[in-house]
Amino acid sequence: MDLPQKISLREVGPRDGLQNEDPVPTDAKVALLDRLSVTGVKRIEAVSFVRPDAIPQMADADEVWKRAAKAPDIRYSALVPNLRGAIRAMDAGFTELEAVVSASETHNRKNVNRSTGQSLDEIAEIIAMAHERDATVQVIVSTAWGCPYEGDVPVERTVSVVGRAITDGADSTSFGDTTGMATPARVRALVGAFRAKYPEQNLNLHFHNTRGTGLANVLAALELGVSDFDASVGGLGGCPYAPGATGNIATEELVHMVEDMGVDTGIDLEAMIDAAADAERIIGRTLPSQVLRAGPRTRTIPA
Amino acid sequence: MDLPQKISLREVGPRDGLQNEDPVPTDAKVALLDRLSVTGVKRIEAVSFVRPDAIPQMADADEVWKRAAKAPDIRYSALVPNLRGAIRAMDAGFTELEAVVSASETHNRKNVNRSTGQSLDEIAEIIAMAHERDATVQVIVSTAWGCPYEGDVPVERTVSVVGRAITDGADSTSFGDTTGMATPARVRALVGAFRAKYPEQNLNLHFHNTRGTGLANVLAALELGVSDFDASVGGLGGCPYAPGATGNIATEELVHMVEDMGVDTGIDLEAMIDAAADAERIIGRTLPSQVLRAGPRTRTIPA
Repeated sequence: MDLPQKISLREVGPRDGLQNEDPVPTDAKVALLDRLSVTGVKRIEAVSFVRPDAIPQMADADEVWKRAAKAPDIRYSALVPNLRGAIRAMDAGFTELEAVVSASETHNRKNVNRSTGQSLDEIAEIIAMAHERDATVQVIVSTAWGCPYEGDVPVERTVSVVGRAITDGADSTSFGDTTGMATPARVRALVGAFRAKYPEQNLNLHFHNTRGTGLANVLAALELGVSDFDASVGGLGGCPYAPGATGNIATEELVHMVEDMGVDTGIDLEAMIDAAADAERIIGRTLPSQVLRAGPRTRTIPA
Repeated sequence: MDLPQKISLREVGPRDGLQNEDPVPTDAKVALLDRLSVTGVKRIEAVSFVRPDAIPQMADADEVWKRAAKAPDIRYSALVPNLRGAIRAMDAGFTELEAVVSASETHNRKNVNRSTGQSLDEIAEIIAMAHERDATVQVIVSTAWGCPYEGDVPVERTVSVVGRAITDGADSTSFGDTTGMATPARVRALVGAFRAKYPEQNLNLHFHNTRGTGLANVLAALELGVSDFDASVGGLGGCPYAPGATGNIATEELVHMVEDMGVDTGIDLEAMIDAAADAERIIGRTLPSQVLRAGPRTRTIPA
């Protein structure tokens, strides 16, 4: 089985993770960002520029970003919900933006109160404006493998939504398994259909472990040669649709598995586990990461 | 990717699960067994016949088994630690026995205070006696992918230990990932080496999710054509080596993933989730099953 020799991980704990937890102080956010910046990870989703009244967790995005250490060899990105957010992000110095649209019409309406078509229209404007300012935009298609309201989302629908963004100039693309509805067979089906249509397009995959399939989906994707994944330190970020349920896959679990399979991530596993322990202290609840609990497989106990 | 069209699952919650939790009343054990017997699962590891002073969780094995409903189309098995336990199991009516030996010398000594060679000697006697009474014996090699004391266990060592049992007449074999040290690459390596040497031998795999790789390991094994797995309802059974850590993979998580991939388990997923909810009530702690928390992917919420 030929797997990629190395993969590129984007750490999304500071943004996606913390946005789906109870609010934490600015100091703690800066400390987490800085802690992650010395783990060897080379991409971090740092903040989002959203309406403070709608998402208080990210109300201090400018302040967090201003105070973060910003390692020169790390690519930091910001999520932007609209043109206004994109302007804020670029004014703050970000050159990598992320914009989200749901594959599911119902999910998009529940999330941003507009149709996917309307969201894609604004994303086209964001892309045009970003390119004028030498910034890039990744378009993330959420509910790519299923919607908590609609159920299954047809592969054709997800490919069609991302296709519109590619036509509009998206610099890169991502599929998000927003509520953990993907299984390995569905990963193969969607990635296969996407590649058949867009063989040259880079693809990031963002899995959730809501139903336990997170790392199995990563394995299926690795076997297809996918080499770009999101993960969240400690598994930070619950699932907003199922109380008590898990959201993002944990970065240290992903690193632990794939490094043991000979796939290089560039990440220092022990440093990432330490960062996960910090994240757990910051958030004040037990995070779902198994590797944080049990330690890596190399950690033996005295006989 | 050709996967088996169907797999055979052995539910190990009543024995392996409950043996690694705080003791529960006899009534609850009988109720759990009976509940599991109507989920569609066709094999259940029911009890173990161990020393009551050493393992109080299984002190009432005879009583539990006497009172259980015992569905005629289900194969129930009992774990036996020695000859004495094997006699008790067969006297109680069991015709399927399981005997365990560690691939790791240190783990075997810590577990049963003897060498693997001594354990294998007694297993040979158990097999001989079982065959005289028309019973079968599965030999389970624990710490097959690694030992919490020794670390890595070489593939050759695990194959050599199981090989001795096969030579002695083991009716079937199983590899146990006792502390969740397997990753997909290691699954491929061990299953490959085993099959190269014993191409005709049936093989059961018993994964733990201690480091989050449980279902990824199942996927890797399915891709190799393995069609015989253990799992525990709700993920019952913690990891005795890492406080708070997870042990067995959850039956409903395994069923949920593979059924969505077109692999038939014969199990009614909703019935198994209900059984997991019962198991959680019985044990009085939150079980690690994600599918128990979030529900199956088919369970949508009102928009």
